This record gives sequence, C-alpha cells and structure tokens, in this order.
Amino acid sequence: MQREPLTFYYGSGSPFAWRVWLALEHKQIPYRAKRLSFDAGDLQTSAYTAINPRQQVPAIVDNSFSLYESAAIVDYLEDQYPQSGAPLWPQEVRARAVARRIATEVDLYVVPPIDTLITQTLVGRQATPDVELLATSGQTLARELALIEQSMAGRFIVGSTVSAADFTLYPLVAFLRRIDIKRPGYDMSRLISARLQLWMTAVESLSYFDKTYPPHWRE
Amino acid sequence: MQREPLTFYYGSGSPFAWRVWLALEHKQIPYRAKRLSFDAGDLQTSAYTAINPRQQVPAIVDNSFSLYESAAIVDYLEDQYPQSGAPLWPQEVRARAVARRIATEVDLYVVPPIDTLITQTLVGRQATPDVELLATSGQTLARELALIEQSMAGRFIVGSTVSAADFTLYPLVAFLRRIDIKRPGYDMSRLISARLQLWMTAVESLSYFDKTYPPHWRE
Repeated sequence: MQREPLTFYYGSGSPFAWRVWLALEHKQIPYRAKRLSFDAGDLQTSAYTAINPRQQVPAIVDNSFSLYESAAIVDYLEDQYPQSGAPLWPQEVRARAVARRIATEVDLYVVPPIDTLITQTLVGRQATPDVELLATSGQTLARELALIEQSMAGRFIVGSTVSAADFTLYPLVAFLRRIDIKRPGYDMSRLISARLQLWMTAVESLSYFDKTYPPHWRE
Repeated sequence: MQREPLTFYYGSGSPFAWRVWLALEHKQIPYRAKRLSFDAGDLQTSAYTAINPRQQVPAIVDNSFSLYESAAIVDYLEDQYPQSGAPLWPQEVRARAVARRIATEVDLYVVPPIDTLITQTLVGRQATPDVELLATSGQTLARELALIEQSMAGRFIVGSTVSAADFTLYPLVAFLRRIDIKRPGYDMSRLISARLQLWMTAVESLSYFDKTYPPHWRE
C-alpha cells in the first residue's frame, strides 16, 4: 500500500518550523512541505486552525494525525519512525539526557531574549527600538549561549553526532545573522562566539542543510 | 552490588520539583530526597551550583550523573529505568505525542501566567499587587487551561492512565488553591473548572500522591 507522505506546514524563517524541517530531513521521512504566509493570513483560516488551534507554525499531519509544537513533533518523528534515517537523539542514555536538557533550556531561556531582539529590530521595523531592552536581551542571550558552550564537547552540541539539540538551537542563532543582513548596525553576530561559529559551520555542512534554508532568505 | 539510591534535590512547593517527585514515585525508583531551603541560600552554594549551574530546583544526581531541568529529568528516568514502576508516557505513539505536546504547552504557556499570579500574590507579599496584571494573567491562564481541557478525554489528561503530562500540570494548578489558602480574597480557584477539579481529585487519589505533597504546605 502506498503511504501518503506526511504534510509539513511551515512559515519561511520560522525557527520552530526550521527545527522540524531539519528533523524530517535527518530522519529521511517523505514529506510534502506546505508554506503558509503570515501576511496572507494562512494561519488564521479555519482549516489550519483545526490543525493547530494556536495558529502557529509548524504543524504536521501524518496519516490523519495532526500535531503541533515543534518539540513534540520531533519526538513523534523519532517514535513513529524509529528505523528511518538517523536517530534524532543520542543513543547513550546520559548523552540523550544532556541533549534533551539543552533543547529544553533553549526553548525556555534562549527563545525569549532572541524573540525580543527579533521583535525590536526585524519584525516591528521600529524607528526607535528600545535600546535598553536590546542591551539586556543581548546580555541574557550571551549568558545563555555561554552556558550551552560550556556543555559542548565535540563538533555538535552533544559530541560528534548532530542531534535534535542542534536543530533546536541553530535556527535561533541563524536569526542573529539575519538581523545583521537586514538591519546592519546592530552587530548581533558579536553574540556568536568563535566556538559557536565553528558549530554553525558544522550544521551548515550537513548534506540536507541547504534544502531547509528559509526560501525567502535567499531572495 | 548494592546500588546507591538516586539523590533528588527539591525545594518545598517548587512545582518543577513536585513534577519530578511524582515521576520518581510513579517509576518506583529508590531515591534520597534532599530538601534545599531557598531562604537559607542552599541553592547558591558552590556544591549545588556544580550540580545545577542555574541554581534552581529540581536536580538529580544518579550514580555520579548530575541532571537538571525537570522535563529532561522525567525523560531520563524513563530512559534509564524502562522496566521500573509504570511508564511515564503513554505507550501508543499518538497518545504519547499528545501527552508530550501538552507537557510542552504547559511549560511554554501555562507557567508564565501562573508565575505572575504567584509572584504578585504569594512571593512578593505586595501590599498593592498590580491589579491589571493579575487580571490579564488570569485571562491568559483561563484560556490555556480551557485549551488543555479540550484535549482531555478520560480521567487523566491523556486517557485513563496518568502520565508525565499530568505531573507537569498538576503542581501548577495546585498553586492556585495554595494562593487562596495563604491570601484569601483573590479567589484563584475560580480558574479551576469543574472538569479540572475532577481531574485534580484523580491525581490526588494516586497511592503515592501524599508522599509528594509539599512538606511546608502541611504546616
């Protein structure tokens, strides 16, 4: 029986959708990517709201099963397709626990300051961003990234094999570079240490990386 | 060979520590509970900072392996002790995905408004809490709890078996009652629907529930 490929709903440049995209490629799971437009209101349609009541991306529909929240999707992909592609979490129990801990820390502590930096510079297009808020968010972010760096011991966040921890952090750090390209002068890239720059290169060297690069960032 | 029991560091009334405590009991994993005092500065000692650089509870040390972040600890317990006690996540893949999604939603969307409610009423002991902030946080929380309720189909959050999703939410909702006991007049319990009250009773009926009840809440 021919299986219907999984449907993957994303928005170009959503770091949470990017995480799932990297995971889908890493797991070599066949999928149909559907790009939703934030501006066109694609996330507010009743059809999409039935899939994700939060009206956010990403979401997936796999064989009639709808799921949202990127962290839960990553775990589902591993659970549902254990034999497909490469594992999303380290196989050794302690390494897996550290990878999960860091992915959790990224969601709880790295997302808020990066979200503030993006909102203040990129999204709102404020003529006058809140300089003090930019400074404190930058400091918080620097402290969080340093903490993660302390745990790193290898090319990737946990050892020599890429994992969902890398897929969780990478799209967020990539946004710092994006801000510098779109709004020069903020020098957000100063927050990316030499060690993290090397790590970014390692992620960007993955064979499937280019396929997941946000389409509108190429334009 | 006699195994050293796992060490569980908690603070009385920390909802994140309570989650892990419920998980340890559910998994029937032998542990030594060490209560740390926030007021006495136990979390700031160099010994504890070496275990958890964030100086938060909970943390565990299991056979020399230190781990923090309650969500990561829960997954570690399941991974490291798959045969012990009862499973922390549903066995069926889709039910497990929904349970994980809800646990993630609790951490990302339920914690912030409850944290604000606690800070404004219980911790700061403000003479004049920010009434508007209390109102908006209450509304956000009500919306989030209603969304979770929509997904519930059984005695527990996912079906008829308790899971880590219940352990994630319960201690937070229990705090609403705690506020009403300590600071009568806010009527936080109004945020707990009849459906959720029934669910709380189900959690409280677990054979090991009483052992995990915050010691200083009894006083």
